[in-house]
Amino acid sequence: MKHYGSKAEDLKIAYIGGGSRGWAWTLMSDLARADDISGTVYLYDIDFDAAKRNEKIGNSIPHNFAYKAAETLPEALKGADFVVISILPGTFDEMESDVHWPERYGIYQSVGDTTGPGGILRAMRTVPMFETFALAIKENCPDAWVINYTNPMTVCVRSLYKVFPEIKAFGCCHEVFGTQALLGFLASDGGAPIPRHDIKVNVTGLNHFTWITSASCHGRDLFPLLYDFSRRLLSEPAKPIVHDEHFSYFGSQDRVKADLLLRFGVMGAAGDRHLAEFNKGGLYLRSPETAESWGFTLTPVSYRREDLRHKLELSEAYYSGKTPFTFKNSGEEGVLQMRALLGLGDLITNVNLPNVGQIPNLPLGAVVETNASFTCNSLKPVSAGNIPASILPMIAGISANQELIAEAALRRDRELAFCAFVSDPLMTASLDDAKRMFREMFDNTSAYLKDYK
Amino acid sequence: MKHYGSKAEDLKIAYIGGGSRGWAWTLMSDLARADDISGTVYLYDIDFDAAKRNEKIGNSIPHNFAYKAAETLPEALKGADFVVISILPGTFDEMESDVHWPERYGIYQSVGDTTGPGGILRAMRTVPMFETFALAIKENCPDAWVINYTNPMTVCVRSLYKVFPEIKAFGCCHEVFGTQALLGFLASDGGAPIPRHDIKVNVTGLNHFTWITSASCHGRDLFPLLYDFSRRLLSEPAKPIVHDEHFSYFGSQDRVKADLLLRFGVMGAAGDRHLAEFNKGGLYLRSPETAESWGFTLTPVSYRREDLRHKLELSEAYYSGKTPFTFKNSGEEGVLQMRALLGLGDLITNVNLPNVGQIPNLPLGAVVETNASFTCNSLKPVSAGNIPASILPMIAGISANQELIAEAALRRDRELAFCAFVSDPLMTASLDDAKRMFREMFDNTSAYLKDYK
Amino acid sequence: MKHYGSKAEDLKIAYIGGGSRGWAWTLMSDLARADDISGTVYLYDIDFDAAKRNEKIGNSIPHNFAYKAAETLPEALKGADFVVISILPGTFDEMESDVHWPERYGIYQSVGDTTGPGGILRAMRTVPMFETFALAIKENCPDAWVINYTNPMTVCVRSLYKVFPEIKAFGCCHEVFGTQALLGFLASDGGAPIPRHDIKVNVTGLNHFTWITSASCHGRDLFPLLYDFSRRLLSEPAKPIVHDEHFSYFGSQDRVKADLLLRFGVMGAAGDRHLAEFNKGGLYLRSPETAESWGFTLTPVSYRREDLRHKLELSEAYYSGKTPFTFKNSGEEGVLQMRALLGLGDLITNVNLPNVGQIPNLPLGAVVETNASFTCNSLKPVSAGNIPASILPMIAGISANQELIAEAALRRDRELAFCAFVSDPLMTASLDDAKRMFREMFDNTSAYLKDYK
Amino acid sequence: MKHYGSKAEDLKIAYIGGGSRGWAWTLMSDLARADDISGTVYLYDIDFDAAKRNEKIGNSIPHNFAYKAAETLPEALKGADFVVISILPGTFDEMESDVHWPERYGIYQSVGDTTGPGGILRAMRTVPMFETFALAIKENCPDAWVINYTNPMTVCVRSLYKVFPEIKAFGCCHEVFGTQALLGFLASDGGAPIPRHDIKVNVTGLNHFTWITSASCHGRDLFPLLYDFSRRLLSEPAKPIVHDEHFSYFGSQDRVKADLLLRFGVMGAAGDRHLAEFNKGGLYLRSPETAESWGFTLTPVSYRREDLRHKLELSEAYYSGKTPFTFKNSGEEGVLQMRALLGLGDLITNVNLPNVGQIPNLPLGAVVETNASFTCNSLKPVSAGNIPASILPMIAGISANQELIAEAALRRDRELAFCAFVSDPLMTASLDDAKRMFREMFDNTSAYLKDYK
Repeated sequence: MKHYGSKAEDLKIAYIGGGSRGWAWTLMSDLARADDISGTVYLYDIDFDAAKRNEKIGNSIPHNFAYKAAETLPEALKGADFVVISILPGTFDEMESDVHWPERYGIYQSVGDTTGPGGILRAMRTVPMFETFALAIKENCPDAWVINYTNPMTVCVRSLYKVFPEIKAFGCCHEVFGTQALLGFLASDGGAPIPRHDIKVNVTGLNHFTWITSASCHGRDLFPLLYDFSRRLLSEPAKPIVHDEHFSYFGSQDRVKADLLLRFGVMGAAGDRHLAEFNKGGLYLRSPETAESWGFTLTPVSYRREDLRHKLELSEAYYSGKTPFTFKNSGEEGVLQMRALLGLGDLITNVNLPNVGQIPNLPLGAVVETNASFTCNSLKPVSAGNIPASILPMIAGISANQELIAEAALRRDRELAFCAFVSDPLMTASLDDAKRMFREMFDNTSAYLKDYK
Repeated sequence: MKHYGSKAEDLKIAYIGGGSRGWAWTLMSDLARADDISGTVYLYDIDFDAAKRNEKIGNSIPHNFAYKAAETLPEALKGADFVVISILPGTFDEMESDVHWPERYGIYQSVGDTTGPGGILRAMRTVPMFETFALAIKENCPDAWVINYTNPMTVCVRSLYKVFPEIKAFGCCHEVFGTQALLGFLASDGGAPIPRHDIKVNVTGLNHFTWITSASCHGRDLFPLLYDFSRRLLSEPAKPIVHDEHFSYFGSQDRVKADLLLRFGVMGAAGDRHLAEFNKGGLYLRSPETAESWGFTLTPVSYRREDLRHKLELSEAYYSGKTPFTFKNSGEEGVLQMRALLGLGDLITNVNLPNVGQIPNLPLGAVVETNASFTCNSLKPVSAGNIPASILPMIAGISANQELIAEAALRRDRELAFCAFVSDPLMTASLDDAKRMFREMFDNTSAYLKDYK
Repeated sequence: MKHYGSKAEDLKIAYIGGGSRGWAWTLMSDLARADDISGTVYLYDIDFDAAKRNEKIGNSIPHNFAYKAAETLPEALKGADFVVISILPGTFDEMESDVHWPERYGIYQSVGDTTGPGGILRAMRTVPMFETFALAIKENCPDAWVINYTNPMTVCVRSLYKVFPEIKAFGCCHEVFGTQALLGFLASDGGAPIPRHDIKVNVTGLNHFTWITSASCHGRDLFPLLYDFSRRLLSEPAKPIVHDEHFSYFGSQDRVKADLLLRFGVMGAAGDRHLAEFNKGGLYLRSPETAESWGFTLTPVSYRREDLRHKLELSEAYYSGKTPFTFKNSGEEGVLQMRALLGLGDLITNVNLPNVGQIPNLPLGAVVETNASFTCNSLKPVSAGNIPASILPMIAGISANQELIAEAALRRDRELAFCAFVSDPLMTASLDDAKRMFREMFDNTSAYLKDYK
Repeated sequence: MKHYGSKAEDLKIAYIGGGSRGWAWTLMSDLARADDISGTVYLYDIDFDAAKRNEKIGNSIPHNFAYKAAETLPEALKGADFVVISILPGTFDEMESDVHWPERYGIYQSVGDTTGPGGILRAMRTVPMFETFALAIKENCPDAWVINYTNPMTVCVRSLYKVFPEIKAFGCCHEVFGTQALLGFLASDGGAPIPRHDIKVNVTGLNHFTWITSASCHGRDLFPLLYDFSRRLLSEPAKPIVHDEHFSYFGSQDRVKADLLLRFGVMGAAGDRHLAEFNKGGLYLRSPETAESWGFTLTPVSYRREDLRHKLELSEAYYSGKTPFTFKNSGEEGVLQMRALLGLGDLITNVNLPNVGQIPNLPLGAVVETNASFTCNSLKPVSAGNIPASILPMIAGISANQELIAEAALRRDRELAFCAFVSDPLMTASLDDAKRMFREMFDNTSAYLKDYK
């Protein structure tokens, strides 16, 4: 990498999972618009062919970055300045088991990739992969900044640090942005929504169970507005959900957020589908109907499969040149973060990092999500203060459970993982059922769980 | 108080709840056999008549302590060396609501005085009483050692310290003793059970959700024995429970303990009825039948009422002199603790105290149960080390919830108390049901909840 | 206060010490150039006449703020949005004793207002004043942001929080700025110095014993430059000091900073005069000659008296209108901080705040200096990480001693203050001499120490 | 090892430094009187001949333990139940440099083996040896209990844990016993001194800078007695010291202890010679005369050499059988501790262990000295509470400096060790002198410092 004060050239970015048809294109789009950085993106994927296709797609866009499919992980990583990790751990078949198998035991998950029985099995598959990544980064590019987008976020970032404590890794997630957008809408008093970056929030908690304890805009405290909104919202029943729209599977009506605010005095700062999964099973996810009464729906894996088919078609169209690559304003911050770390513009935003004191009433080392200050060569969390007492019982338990999953998976200790499985908030089954469910879900995904004792 | 090296005279012991027909007689019995201490026990009770009766009963035993019913709390406390607190917060009517009302919502509690919906309502009633006690102790005998036996233990002790941080209070509970007895039985290899004090255990956790992380006897590690016992026990079904025996309502078959050991690698150290209540509602307490399949039964308040009737008859018999007072080897340690604090024999035993570092991975200040060293004028917890990772998710959450209840009750904040109500592990109801249940249980016991907002 | 998104009007700023001839004019100057805020500055001073004069001077500048001398502290504070505290605790007579009396015992202080025997006596005078301020702020403007400039900074800020824990106070000091300027000079490679705000530093430690653990500019690590500079600097002897120049009393040649860097691997981030005072007495301040061999000189109070005479003349000239008020680019950040807190421009800069985790290896609550993020209604420290092991022995001891002074002064406990006096790093006297010195210095300044036991 | 409930046989004890003429004989003496344990003591020493001699001496005493000189460390350690470490790191020549070289720079040390310039150089020699021991223990007897008697205690124990975190090591020192004896004398009111074990104390701090925060005996608070004693003692001048008596070199008149108590409100709990060395150089150790005015004298290495000559003669006499081995009541607790760990009698006594929360205001991991509970297979520190504020500035700084020395020595980092050298409380030299002194002392002992960079 070369640096000229106001621009950086010859960057090497390694992208693990670089054959993807979502995040990879987003990154291409965002890099193309950053005119003060240039270099090469190495695309690594266990599906080399997919990486090759993205190589061609990326290079078809005339801009400042070249794309290159890497045949091995070391080739991608060697000397990299940045590493981006965005993978699907396993296939949709494994995800099918994660998300839907627990339904046989009356456990419903709106997403199933972070917590709940599905999140735990997913963690068990993912952590060994992240162990490999951390060791390879240590070997090939120990000074690189590592950005993770993969779920389960908390466990992934924790594993990277457990394996290679000096790693400069952080986890990014756009869920808080949506909450800031809601605040921007409320703050606009009916005018044009106020841009997200003008909404100043204190972020705290764990990824996907993230919270906002204060919010201001242009000198105005936004919590009174938020209380009004929440009371009004919950005074009417949820709007009916039409199940064939894309939004229906990923959006929400903010009713869970409203309910959490009125109950706990703190604002949930992730989509309702995610927030719901960290609450006790009986509350928002007793049944698909309960979920709908709260204004959101479960995201079936069948929908994800269908969505993938569309993306594969699009990939083919991009690849063949039939369709020109579409640049989008992604709203993601990965490239802004890279630029800030290169000294090209400071940034404060929320990320996932080991606790070094930013949340004094959670254990040091546990991965938490708070604001952090990105500046030249430096990423430092901003103090978020103590987790409020009203939500600490939930968060303290969940944080310890995430630690337990990471530890169990690094040890490949199936019994220890079962301890986490039983302690998950969504677990409402009897002990016998829990045991059976765990065994079945393990067997369903055993191709990815070979080392477990 | 006068001290002569090997004996202490003129002690003043204040007994809050001194009209009781259980603990009061136990104390009389134990004091009568301690021949190196003497003085006066002041019995204070909101039922003055009951205290008067116990005064007569106590004085009918010819020994080293005089008994005196006190008409006011200050009279009982003024200049006391020791204060014993053992009260029933409310009547059996309130307890009826605590224990049985949640059954209407499918929530079963084996005891209902510590955690669960019943434990939380009981805490809401009890904390204001303990606030009164703490203030009166501060005023009348700030240097006294204060021994609490009242449940919910954790919350009671925490409240005393929140209100009067310099108080010298601790909480005693005999539940761990039973677990040591089980170990003594196992260690005896079929011979005479080894006495409890020869079973050396590391105690950790929260009252009634207490754990033993290591156990030895005469140089022998007892955990292998315990694993064998547990596997053998669970290989057979539970013995059927006969519901008309006293033991059936308070005893257990140790199956919950065995299950916890095999699952988490740590030994639960309280009766199964208590341990079960801190686990998720679905596990051991899904229904009365589930409980019985685990070898224990729910303790109905009707049985407690009946038991009280027997005790009242016995009280009358003692009072009238018809029946001579029965001295029992109580197995309780209150008097041993007093003697140790007077410099008459060191003691290490488990008690409930604010965390000053004895459990480094729980928050400072939270009340925890560990071993402690009692010696002349000094009570210091013994380091228990970190809570093991496998059980930390449960304990971290529960500990934070106990903190939340204490805080909510001290603020008389009904909404904050509801946050704890929903976060309790036994809560399996839907949100609407939880709200209704809370409102009803509040109304059922509102005579004791007048200050709540 | 009224807020219109891009500007704030009707601000009330209370200035305690508003009769000053230095900081008050700086504030006037800086406020005059902030065109998006307006309102009234209330000047409170125990020398009401001085406040009155500043009122006239302030109002003679045609701009957005009105000035008003307040007769009482409550009048100044009532409903204030911001409070600025910048006082001289006592007169130059007290300072004379602080700074020069210890010289009779061979203890030399370059400044004498922060640490050392002088700093401790000054703290003993100042803390009771800050207790008064904290109580008055609690009463009159509990929500105001409070900016302290008074030394001893750490102890002053700590006292405000001990007396009124919910206060929104922070301490500002420009010493780090000079260090950033040095880095900006080094980073320029001989060209125009790079502006301070482009020099990104991680700040940590205690006020006036502040450290920089990393520094970057435009993607370049500045530590290699800094090592070169330091080695080169120390390879030559110090330049001779001419004692009649203003700079000679307040400036330095950065030799102490260079020495600390080469020894400890961390960069001292305050003027050498301040840094020297936190080192053992024998090192940089064994004698005035030792100091000069390190390129700095002691600042005699006689020079401060002379300097004041000039300022009083200037005050008279401004007041009478003979000389027009001089606007200066102060380089101070107080007004930038106010604007940021009003939502008019985010800022990251170093300030003094209680430790809420920003330095995990110093005690929670202790006042420390690190970067912090100022944004709308919010001030949050940025994590600085652990104090490096090489300097922790010094800082851990000094931080505990500052806590001790604050505590001793709040209790008006002279003996406890003496414990801090003896533990100060500059203390090289024998115990008898230390006792005598303490007694004499106490007596010298006893007019301000009346409540001490 | 075999265990029969009331006795343990076939113990293997490894003694590193087993050729010693002091501690080895003490251990023989103490083991001979413990009739419930038996086995073999393996004596390992770099002076194999000395070990051989002790083998013969040990076996000449008819009792329950056999002695065997081991030629290699693994031979001694293989399968050991206990390991005792008591070595002299280097020879008296190195100690000569440690203790007396700093006198050329006006730095006087009463002992010179724990802190001060001498203690730091000694640590630099000792830590690499302890690294070897820890690795050999890990390899040969990872489950053994390891008792260290070697100084510098804090650094030795810390190194064992840094190298092998699972080690079951603790450090023993009899200095506190003497302080308890003083209390026993005071408590006796002129009668027979009360035995040490009846004096109940709360011990806290660091080895040789240990403190007692409360003391009781038979229900009586001993601090009032202690204040009286201290005031009376210091009202008279010190008694003159006769320099040819053994006691004069190792004893004291408790004047330092008295002064510390009256100043800080806490009782120093080590011999005055040790306590003095942790105070600033100017206070008790400005000169040999200052020391004598405080009632103690510096211990010259020449005296130690002479003392050794006597011991060698005695060794010869024992070895040849001319003189029968003398059994002494050592007052040491090593054998009591072993017995307690074997389940043959519980014990609470003070030891050096990593901080796991026993002192919440010192860092976790730092080695501290507090009471601990020894019971079957278990050693757990007893909570000592926070270090009192008055002495925390000293202790926080010293503890961090001990951490720094251990770290520097493990890294063989000479420059980092110099940081600790300068931060030591006894260091009063100028920076140039400190550098020269460090270089010279390093060169004086370079035979033992070969790996340092």
